[in-house]
Amino acid sequence: MPPFFKRLHRKKDGRELWLYSLTPEEASPLPELQEPFHPAPHLRYHPLRGEWVVYAAHRQGRTFLPPKEHCPLCPSQAGGFPTEIPFAAFQVAVFENRFPSFVEEAPPPPEGLPVPVEAALGRCEVVVYTPSHTGSLATLTEEERLLLAWVWRDRYQALYALPGVRFVMPFENRGEAVGVTLHHPHGQIYAYPFVPPVLERESQAFRERPVLLELFPHLGPYVVDEEEGFLAFVPPFARYPYEVWVAPRERRPGPWTFSEGEMAAFARLLGRVVARYDTLFGEPFPYVMVFHAAPLGEEATFHFHVEFYPPKRTRDRIKYLAGTELGAGTFVVDALPEETAKALREAL
Amino acid sequence: MPPFFKRLHRKKDGRELWLYSLTPEEASPLPELQEPFHPAPHLRYHPLRGEWVVYAAHRQGRTFLPPKEHCPLCPSQAGGFPTEIPFAAFQVAVFENRFPSFVEEAPPPPEGLPVPVEAALGRCEVVVYTPSHTGSLATLTEEERLLLAWVWRDRYQALYALPGVRFVMPFENRGEAVGVTLHHPHGQIYAYPFVPPVLERESQAFRERPVLLELFPHLGPYVVDEEEGFLAFVPPFARYPYEVWVAPRERRPGPWTFSEGEMAAFARLLGRVVARYDTLFGEPFPYVMVFHAAPLGEEATFHFHVEFYPPKRTRDRIKYLAGTELGAGTFVVDALPEETAKALREAL
Repeated sequence: MPPFFKRLHRKKDGRELWLYSLTPEEASPLPELQEPFHPAPHLRYHPLRGEWVVYAAHRQGRTFLPPKEHCPLCPSQAGGFPTEIPFAAFQVAVFENRFPSFVEEAPPPPEGLPVPVEAALGRCEVVVYTPSHTGSLATLTEEERLLLAWVWRDRYQALYALPGVRFVMPFENRGEAVGVTLHHPHGQIYAYPFVPPVLERESQAFRERPVLLELFPHLGPYVVDEEEGFLAFVPPFARYPYEVWVAPRERRPGPWTFSEGEMAAFARLLGRVVARYDTLFGEPFPYVMVFHAAPLGEEATFHFHVEFYPPKRTRDRIKYLAGTELGAGTFVVDALPEETAKALREAL
Repeated sequence: MPPFFKRLHRKKDGRELWLYSLTPEEASPLPELQEPFHPAPHLRYHPLRGEWVVYAAHRQGRTFLPPKEHCPLCPSQAGGFPTEIPFAAFQVAVFENRFPSFVEEAPPPPEGLPVPVEAALGRCEVVVYTPSHTGSLATLTEEERLLLAWVWRDRYQALYALPGVRFVMPFENRGEAVGVTLHHPHGQIYAYPFVPPVLERESQAFRERPVLLELFPHLGPYVVDEEEGFLAFVPPFARYPYEVWVAPRERRPGPWTFSEGEMAAFARLLGRVVARYDTLFGEPFPYVMVFHAAPLGEEATFHFHVEFYPPKRTRDRIKYLAGTELGAGTFVVDALPEETAKALREAL
């Protein structure tokens, strides 16, 4: 039995809120804001790139860098500002995004468009890592981080069970440099009704050969850190100067197949990668972190891994994606992976 | 005969500089800076995404937002600071990038890496639109913009003639929001030794069907502007809120097949799109602009078009690419193309 408790609270606007904890919690809910929740995203097909684009016009109004006292991800206080989480205490909270790109009850797409359209079926969730307004994957206690890893695993299982979902991706956008709109430590999960283009290409590569298993014996100078059964490394073909991947040494399709020992090693290694990032320039290091687990049907060959894309190329300079990256899909990198791996290895 | 003159000047460090003008120019060169020029980019293969990544470590030292009096793209002045262009006057200047991602004399790639490597053969050029330090495609005179269009056409022909070049892409990064390091109005051209992933996908789509010709009859609410034989429109499947494409109504593989009349219409329409952008929020509008012409061998089916990707989603907000865009390749857009097309149509 997994080492956590979970409790479902249905928010007044109909959204699900799950509270995960290491010990059972029974507190009664506090009053909630009840704002309208009628998201209406839809999909349009890009006929030249061969990919779906999501239109979620309701997102323009989303919360943008609120002051700390109005953080919607903090616990609510009796008599105080009602946050997204109507409880005075929690450990990890997961709720349906109020500004979703995919929803289970997506309305029919608009008619009469000159390209194929579809309903944006699926689900978008917010994962609040901790009740504390500050912190990161690096500053959580080992116990908190392990609980979070179990939450990801549980959400994978819940979301892949939804009808029509073909790919589930936990991710975290960290830092204003990547456009975060809320500073409270949190991530997101998207459950897509299609296999997105990057995962389609990765799936095809894994169907042809065990790319990561072939790479691991040659990773010497690229290894940043390790734990029993897991490696953290700068890929020798990194597209961002300080890109880091975390992967199990043996092929696993996703965290839902990890042993309890693997869960703990994975959580520790993720935390240490972020600690290395934050030590590198002596300040919180912005990044986009994405989990690549097997899309539906790819479980026999896909090798789970986490990819961190940090936008910094030096302490003071951002690597902007521009003409060649956005317009051609070819990345130009200023720093050699051998060197950034060494810097990150020596950072702790 | 094309309506321009061109003159080759070999810079002291060996790089080519081409001066394009409407009337012959004969001025003698002024003194030049002579800094070392030994670029050593190389390519590594990303085995999961199936794409080449360019390593150009020498680029870390490139010029970053210099003060106006040290702009390397301004004309040189006798007795003054030597710029990249050792002439006191010019109309349009094209020179080999001092920090190239591809070079004709690329050294052999490093040995012993755990992924395939190649020399980064090709060429990168800088196109200086005007001797004036300020301005844009919108503020050039009609005559200057037409000369610039002929320069692009001439560079297409020169670069596709280089051995090993498979795709040539003029582009412009405009505004600090997309990371420009020099404000002087200019663009760049990359000549790639492979067909980059985005162009591979577009080529395949065009091989299967004439995607743009099929789209044009249905573009009514998406049209932003037009000229004889050319359309400017927000694609109904735009990935950026104010994305605009410019394309000939009939299929042309690239500007090298335009008639003289088409050259003029194309130049006018590009200028007016930028004028609309700059009017929209009453300030210079940042964007990445890329030209998608036929890669080598795709001339029979590819339909030339220009894509503008502006990073703004409102006057004050940037659309950051984050988890879903960078990690999955699926774009989420806040604004409907029908609405942004209307805003741009009404902007002038």
